[in-house]
Amino acid sequence: MTTSTTPSDQTRALLMREHEIAVQPAAVPSPGPHQVLVEVAAVGICGSDVHYFEHGRIADFVVREPLVLGHEASGTIRALGSEVTDRSVGQRVAMEPQETCGRCPQCLAGRYNLCPDVVFFATPPVDGAFAQYVVLDSVRAHPVPDSLSDEAAALIEPLSVAVWAARKAAIEPGDRVLVTGAGPVGLLCADVARARGASWVGVSDTNEHRLEVAGQRGASHVVNVLAGPLIEQIDPVDVVLECSGATPAVQSAFDVTAPAARIVMVGLGSPDMELPVATIQVKELVVTGVFRYANCYPAAIALAASGAVDLDSLVTGKFGLEQVTEALSASKTDPHSLKPVVYPGTDSI
Amino acid sequence: MTTSTTPSDQTRALLMREHEIAVQPAAVPSPGPHQVLVEVAAVGICGSDVHYFEHGRIADFVVREPLVLGHEASGTIRALGSEVTDRSVGQRVAMEPQETCGRCPQCLAGRYNLCPDVVFFATPPVDGAFAQYVVLDSVRAHPVPDSLSDEAAALIEPLSVAVWAARKAAIEPGDRVLVTGAGPVGLLCADVARARGASWVGVSDTNEHRLEVAGQRGASHVVNVLAGPLIEQIDPVDVVLECSGATPAVQSAFDVTAPAARIVMVGLGSPDMELPVATIQVKELVVTGVFRYANCYPAAIALAASGAVDLDSLVTGKFGLEQVTEALSASKTDPHSLKPVVYPGTDSI
Amino acid sequence: MTTSTTPSDQTRALLMREHEIAVQPAAVPSPGPHQVLVEVAAVGICGSDVHYFEHGRIADFVVREPLVLGHEASGTIRALGSEVTDRSVGQRVAMEPQETCGRCPQCLAGRYNLCPDVVFFATPPVDGAFAQYVVLDSVRAHPVPDSLSDEAAALIEPLSVAVWAARKAAIEPGDRVLVTGAGPVGLLCADVARARGASWVGVSDTNEHRLEVAGQRGASHVVNVLAGPLIEQIDPVDVVLECSGATPAVQSAFDVTAPAARIVMVGLGSPDMELPVATIQVKELVVTGVFRYANCYPAAIALAASGAVDLDSLVTGKFGLEQVTEALSASKTDPHSLKPVVYPGTDSI
Amino acid sequence: MTTSTTPSDQTRALLMREHEIAVQPAAVPSPGPHQVLVEVAAVGICGSDVHYFEHGRIADFVVREPLVLGHEASGTIRALGSEVTDRSVGQRVAMEPQETCGRCPQCLAGRYNLCPDVVFFATPPVDGAFAQYVVLDSVRAHPVPDSLSDEAAALIEPLSVAVWAARKAAIEPGDRVLVTGAGPVGLLCADVARARGASWVGVSDTNEHRLEVAGQRGASHVVNVLAGPLIEQIDPVDVVLECSGATPAVQSAFDVTAPAARIVMVGLGSPDMELPVATIQVKELVVTGVFRYANCYPAAIALAASGAVDLDSLVTGKFGLEQVTEALSASKTDPHSLKPVVYPGTDSI
Repeated sequence: MTTSTTPSDQTRALLMREHEIAVQPAAVPSPGPHQVLVEVAAVGICGSDVHYFEHGRIADFVVREPLVLGHEASGTIRALGSEVTDRSVGQRVAMEPQETCGRCPQCLAGRYNLCPDVVFFATPPVDGAFAQYVVLDSVRAHPVPDSLSDEAAALIEPLSVAVWAARKAAIEPGDRVLVTGAGPVGLLCADVARARGASWVGVSDTNEHRLEVAGQRGASHVVNVLAGPLIEQIDPVDVVLECSGATPAVQSAFDVTAPAARIVMVGLGSPDMELPVATIQVKELVVTGVFRYANCYPAAIALAASGAVDLDSLVTGKFGLEQVTEALSASKTDPHSLKPVVYPGTDSI
Repeated sequence: MTTSTTPSDQTRALLMREHEIAVQPAAVPSPGPHQVLVEVAAVGICGSDVHYFEHGRIADFVVREPLVLGHEASGTIRALGSEVTDRSVGQRVAMEPQETCGRCPQCLAGRYNLCPDVVFFATPPVDGAFAQYVVLDSVRAHPVPDSLSDEAAALIEPLSVAVWAARKAAIEPGDRVLVTGAGPVGLLCADVARARGASWVGVSDTNEHRLEVAGQRGASHVVNVLAGPLIEQIDPVDVVLECSGATPAVQSAFDVTAPAARIVMVGLGSPDMELPVATIQVKELVVTGVFRYANCYPAAIALAASGAVDLDSLVTGKFGLEQVTEALSASKTDPHSLKPVVYPGTDSI
Repeated sequence: MTTSTTPSDQTRALLMREHEIAVQPAAVPSPGPHQVLVEVAAVGICGSDVHYFEHGRIADFVVREPLVLGHEASGTIRALGSEVTDRSVGQRVAMEPQETCGRCPQCLAGRYNLCPDVVFFATPPVDGAFAQYVVLDSVRAHPVPDSLSDEAAALIEPLSVAVWAARKAAIEPGDRVLVTGAGPVGLLCADVARARGASWVGVSDTNEHRLEVAGQRGASHVVNVLAGPLIEQIDPVDVVLECSGATPAVQSAFDVTAPAARIVMVGLGSPDMELPVATIQVKELVVTGVFRYANCYPAAIALAASGAVDLDSLVTGKFGLEQVTEALSASKTDPHSLKPVVYPGTDSI
Repeated sequence: MTTSTTPSDQTRALLMREHEIAVQPAAVPSPGPHQVLVEVAAVGICGSDVHYFEHGRIADFVVREPLVLGHEASGTIRALGSEVTDRSVGQRVAMEPQETCGRCPQCLAGRYNLCPDVVFFATPPVDGAFAQYVVLDSVRAHPVPDSLSDEAAALIEPLSVAVWAARKAAIEPGDRVLVTGAGPVGLLCADVARARGASWVGVSDTNEHRLEVAGQRGASHVVNVLAGPLIEQIDPVDVVLECSGATPAVQSAFDVTAPAARIVMVGLGSPDMELPVATIQVKELVVTGVFRYANCYPAAIALAASGAVDLDSLVTGKFGLEQVTEALSASKTDPHSLKPVVYPGTDSI
């Protein structure tokens, strides 16, 4: 293990049970042979973190033991495992928060996000990144250029979701794209659609403030669906990136699809929804969904580094490790909150 | 117009209203510049013909004037339009029963089946092929080898549906394929899956006789879903070709999908169905549907001519033009009926 | 035919034989049922025009009768054929200079650029657009927004070549793209690569001025291959868009390809070249070429209209109809010439 | 390590230098944590084995130390590594003779055959399977059904090459496919093309006997190119699987391609060849090559198990471990030799 001087102890914020976060000391972990030790710089708060904080579970994933949340993370490599030759101490990295087996049919086919043995940060019982130090596989520690801020490097994670969704939709120059739901992932989906050359990118939501943000980021058109049905407000689209998880949004999106349109389900909502099967048939629509992402970090980093996607402007609040509870509550306390960021190296900000 | 001697009058069977067929004389049509005149040899009965016969409509397509049914048709070219140079009088052909504009975005993109101006046989107000003579565009009159019977040439139409569905599913050697619904189209989908090299082709239905036929045609496994849930009877599959239109069949098919599986909705059923969206997301399934077909006739003819798909064995009844009512009632009167065929050149058989 | 008042006579510039252009009167053509009459606004000079002017032929296409050159053209619709309902008099349009049969296997498959009966402007014996008026199929007269200049609308044609090449290469965010050859098409290929989100777009040439232009347009890196082999100057790329037609450029491009890279041959050069087949195998490269384009105009118009691609800045000279000879000679007389444009409505500028 | 009783010593055949094979004792290797120990049943002789035997090298791969040849191998699992849970002792397996890193960009993208750290049997300095026992990663030991003979299980390796080539070519029902070169891989490519539903499969060669075999295996048409140019003997094809490596065969194949045809370079030949670039452009051909295979063994096993591809009939000679020299010389001594097979568990046959 090649290493600079790292402390042996660190501090982490743990979800003890619903609504209860405790900051506790812990040992700094040692990287395995193919892992690196990363000093965490910034961690974005995701809706799933908030959901675990509020409900103690997401579907079948139940928090039974204290759990470190946070999976949108950046940092600096502080030590290398014995076999690591492709990274160096001091490199700033965006952390792709998953490890996969590399040997199952899904991994061998390049769909490692569907690996049945995937280990993902902040998904019980796997700890996440609200900690001063974490370890992960060296190939999942993606170097970032100095031009990217710590926050931007952390937000490569949700940007990767958007990159993956847009790749599934095969967005091309000339395509008309509708993004339903203007939360952080929806906004990034719109950004990526535009970065792929989409000729028209519409964003729908019920929240005027979020639509305003979408417009500021460059959406061609924003639609408040409280003002009337989608079909009365926009022309048919070639692609829908569904980021709301709201059943009515999903259903009404089918109404505005052009023949052979692609619909990618990104937002999590009701596990079952009534969908217009006859429309799927008559228009030969293609409907799919995304589960995290595979092979997206390099592209996401490139989009952020080139300025095609601005990540810094998504940040709406900054918090130290002692303020994780506030960070997890920001969506409740600040109606304009989009992306709170936690800095584990700092107690409070 | 190059022509052999053709009569000026012919006989056709018209649907006058629900449950009422009338055989009436009519003029033999003249082919337009790019059309050919075909003397009809054989016409398969499709579920849509039966539906119009029984209900006088399918969704928004309502029979308001007497309509000639029948769109699965073969015959012999008897005259050529003035501009036709790629066909000859006397050629036996399978008729692709649609004409499209050739100039709209869908046609220009190669998706002519989605042409908004498509004209399709036996779809009100367009007449079909229960007639001694019909005209159609020369490029939609596909020559067949002598080795194909008239019945087989007619059934190139439903085989094209199966070719299209399997193409949408991108079935490959090694894939495990489930066909839900063992009607004529389901049986042909299973045949095409096997012809593409699928390593395992299962067929499910509730009808023992149809499952027996599926087994005789070469299905790897047949499943009677009355015996228990699909998921208890088969291992996960890479492809589902849904040919039943039955909501429970559609829903249970998702349970047996492998990661990244493709589901193609072929059968028509309820226009809206509750679908497991979370499963689509977690497994990144691809769900699509088919609307008729495009560019499939040559492949379907090749599969039938090579013996890869046996069409003759699907025929379960033969009827003359005066017996169209019986042909349209066969599915009610004969529990083993699969594909009745009408021979418009004969009064009765 | 719906029409505004149009004159019955017009003026055109014809290539009489090598190096000889004559401006002559001609009748204004009448649009066929599906055509529109367009008053030509601007016509870009393409290398193929120059080649016909200098050599009287390109490969098997020989100028045997006086020929109107020019196929990169824009204008305003002045009359409609009897069947045209989707265009209106007064619309400004970019002209896609090809008509295809719509019925052959290539057209039906959506590859209409490969139609054996394609008719293409300025390709013997079909006249082009160095004329005050031309007719073409209404669906090939693509409306442009007012924000596009006449020159930009004309240059939608070479931009469509770049759109098609980039689509064949399936350029994605994160891809590293090399464009070899910085002529007008190469520069536009680089623009489109960037508009699709390519993370790095390098441009190589031997002409310093053109490389400078490439840099000004936003290339990530420019490479003068006179300074040393490509492989010593750049890291491996995922995509090569070969726009030089120069055999050494083609060959050296293979050296800098990453595994599974795509190479699209755009530039015309020697009909036969020695290529590194073993490299194609060991890296599993995909090599293809483009022949004009299909279904690209709407995307190209969208890219130009959004500002993603700047077409006006390509224009390096403006000429009236009496100055076509000068326009066709500009590449010889002006070392910085990129895209001369002819305005057929003006005698001289 | 779970194990049945295995001996500690074994015998192997080593290539000492050009034309010299020595049978020597060696220790039975111990499987690593993720490996299995396989008792080798049958090993096919590949052209590359013959080439190493005759020349001591292939391109940059030079035999510097004694090397065990043989990479087309089957056997029975005799021991499991400590982490192996997905295989069992006694399972008969086809051995995919490569181990890859699972962590590089190529592996993560599902293109593990392009892994820069790939370790491949019988490629210096990695030993192959002319041995009684070998170890390999458990996921590369693919179980085969009892219906497959040892020889067939060994020949899953060259069949995987054919599966990969046909997959790259995306052969579909209705496609016309030409295989150039009727050696073992060419014959298998023809078989796989047919198993994917190709409507016409032609095979060309200069060797009458091999063409006869191709015809017996089911080729639609065989062409002896000594009788005249390909273009005079066959109609255009949609796919070429080039398995000869002969430059004239490669070049003449382009002459018989239909628009948008795919050409896959399978056979190894001259590293550089003069190719018709203008033809690639005018017809928009897609040219690619294959390097071994990825994710093909399960599909190949399924094709062999279903009877779609008959592997046993390829075997033209059987040899014991003491007869490896004869096996490697069979292509010289027997003009009808296609696939000699070595049985390492037997001294001589």
